[in-house]
Amino acid sequence: MNTLASLVNHQLRLASRPVGPIAPQNWQLTEAPVAEPAEGQVLVQTLLLSLDPAMRGWLNDTRSYIPPVGIGEVMRAGGIGRVLVSRDPAFAPGDLVSGLLGAQDYCAAAQAIPGSRALQKIDTRLGSPSQWLNVFGIPGMTAYFGLLDVGQPKPGDTVVVSGAAGAVGQTVGQMARIKGCRVVGIAGGPAKCDWVVRELGFDACIDYKSGSVRDGLKQHCPQGVDLYFDNVGGEILDHVLARLRPKARIVLCGAISQYNATGAMVGPKNYMALLVQRARMEGMVVFDYAERFPAAIAELAGYLKDGRMKSREDIVEGGIAAFPRALDMLFSGQNFGKLVLKVAE
Amino acid sequence: MNTLASLVNHQLRLASRPVGPIAPQNWQLTEAPVAEPAEGQVLVQTLLLSLDPAMRGWLNDTRSYIPPVGIGEVMRAGGIGRVLVSRDPAFAPGDLVSGLLGAQDYCAAAQAIPGSRALQKIDTRLGSPSQWLNVFGIPGMTAYFGLLDVGQPKPGDTVVVSGAAGAVGQTVGQMARIKGCRVVGIAGGPAKCDWVVRELGFDACIDYKSGSVRDGLKQHCPQGVDLYFDNVGGEILDHVLARLRPKARIVLCGAISQYNATGAMVGPKNYMALLVQRARMEGMVVFDYAERFPAAIAELAGYLKDGRMKSREDIVEGGIAAFPRALDMLFSGQNFGKLVLKVAE
Repeated sequence: MNTLASLVNHQLRLASRPVGPIAPQNWQLTEAPVAEPAEGQVLVQTLLLSLDPAMRGWLNDTRSYIPPVGIGEVMRAGGIGRVLVSRDPAFAPGDLVSGLLGAQDYCAAAQAIPGSRALQKIDTRLGSPSQWLNVFGIPGMTAYFGLLDVGQPKPGDTVVVSGAAGAVGQTVGQMARIKGCRVVGIAGGPAKCDWVVRELGFDACIDYKSGSVRDGLKQHCPQGVDLYFDNVGGEILDHVLARLRPKARIVLCGAISQYNATGAMVGPKNYMALLVQRARMEGMVVFDYAERFPAAIAELAGYLKDGRMKSREDIVEGGIAAFPRALDMLFSGQNFGKLVLKVAE
Repeated sequence: MNTLASLVNHQLRLASRPVGPIAPQNWQLTEAPVAEPAEGQVLVQTLLLSLDPAMRGWLNDTRSYIPPVGIGEVMRAGGIGRVLVSRDPAFAPGDLVSGLLGAQDYCAAAQAIPGSRALQKIDTRLGSPSQWLNVFGIPGMTAYFGLLDVGQPKPGDTVVVSGAAGAVGQTVGQMARIKGCRVVGIAGGPAKCDWVVRELGFDACIDYKSGSVRDGLKQHCPQGVDLYFDNVGGEILDHVLARLRPKARIVLCGAISQYNATGAMVGPKNYMALLVQRARMEGMVVFDYAERFPAAIAELAGYLKDGRMKSREDIVEGGIAAFPRALDMLFSGQNFGKLVLKVAE
């Protein structure tokens, strides 16, 4: 165990709760020695960390599907790591694992959250470690179960997905295509829009930064929208509500446009379109589907293998210290694909 | 047919579209002779007219589940009438019928709307003519299918209904009680609140005019809300969203608090509670269930007969000329029970 003594665990802790956008002073970077794992635990070195819009919500002291990150605690984060020392017979040194490793270099035990799995070995024959944070990770599972279970797409449906080039959106759109739907993405900038159409096979993509979403929806969804997978909330949600078809479904996955709002959230003023169109808006939390993750991963792996699906990750270098800067990229839409922080090789 | 020549048909027509609350000048009262019905038609004398919150929406020139009332047209209204002359073998003089008679003394043929029935004989052994506009009419059908089909109540659920003493709310609450739910109403003023608790058997009722709806929900729904039947929208919807239980259902039936808004509708700022609670908000339009109305009426008639259900109508006198004043009562909450205009004996 001599080797552990030389290791330093850089940990990013929540120093104070942000009001509006996260400020540098909301974080504190600390150092700690690395302890030997207890019996039944494993010591994991963090290789990659997932950066997710939901993280902004975890910083608020409000009722949600999981408790907020406490002041002084290591920031909650999912990641991919390598087992260094194992005192659990299920793991061996060198195993690659995914789990809630936290924003730190080393983690002595997965911090399980209710309904979620703790540490899980990943199979790199199915996909790369970064894909295990994307299409095989929480974003992919969110896309899969949100689209299929909550959204219930039917062949021929017109499906709209916002954040189309993001982690969840890319898989939602490709799954919907595979299920026989017409898919219209909404993304920011021509590069992302071109990519989802040319590389991922979306039927169209609306660039919300360069034109009117309302006009784009009118042009690309002339018959209206059967299913909207919402990652952004705000005005875009209102524009889609105004174009719903009868019996439409809105899958509420996120509202990134609102997460940094300092005042009250803005509600969808066109929500009564749900009544007129006998439509529904329904929320989902991916951890509810944890038991079905393996089957979903197997299905998605098949699509990746046969070329019907692609994935794109945007990997930021810089280790734990770069976590705050990387997270900010999500809220300004600077990432192109699933945003991942590289912590170690 | 000599008798028809002496009759005058008072008709209330839409003169201009209201902006905000309906103003007297938005209406025009006209007189017309009464023509003999054509072959296959019946001539119906209006006895009672239903006054409904949805009428405000019919006056707006916006996309909805039925076309708006046109400028110069007789105001659309459901009612109960008596057949005076029949040239349809399905009806005989003296028959009592329900249908979209319009805001007029006489109607030569039911003005059918898509998906709705035209004229239908009513059975006064099941209930009074005014009950045929309430529990056996559109409000009762809305309550029945909205609660049961969309809301899917389970025994033990905590059900909240706004507009609890109104036409739809009274039946929603009583049905939910019959289905084994705990029922909390929201109504305006102590008389209505007392009535729904003492007469209708609701477990509690929150007076939104005299206290905080937020505190009332906290007190009467300590475990949260499983099912909310929303007739009012606005702030009350936001208060309920903040107290949803996991897998809760919100049935969107109306938003009377918003119908007279001159600016944009206010959306529910707490709508992301749907995500956190894996809940859904779903709209319904009662005409979709028209084929199942007879079965629902039979079931409701049984509850009225065995005393498990009661109904209350608030009947305003004054004929067609009183229609505008009576309709205004809905938006200020002056009615107590289903609001009905008496046009003739």
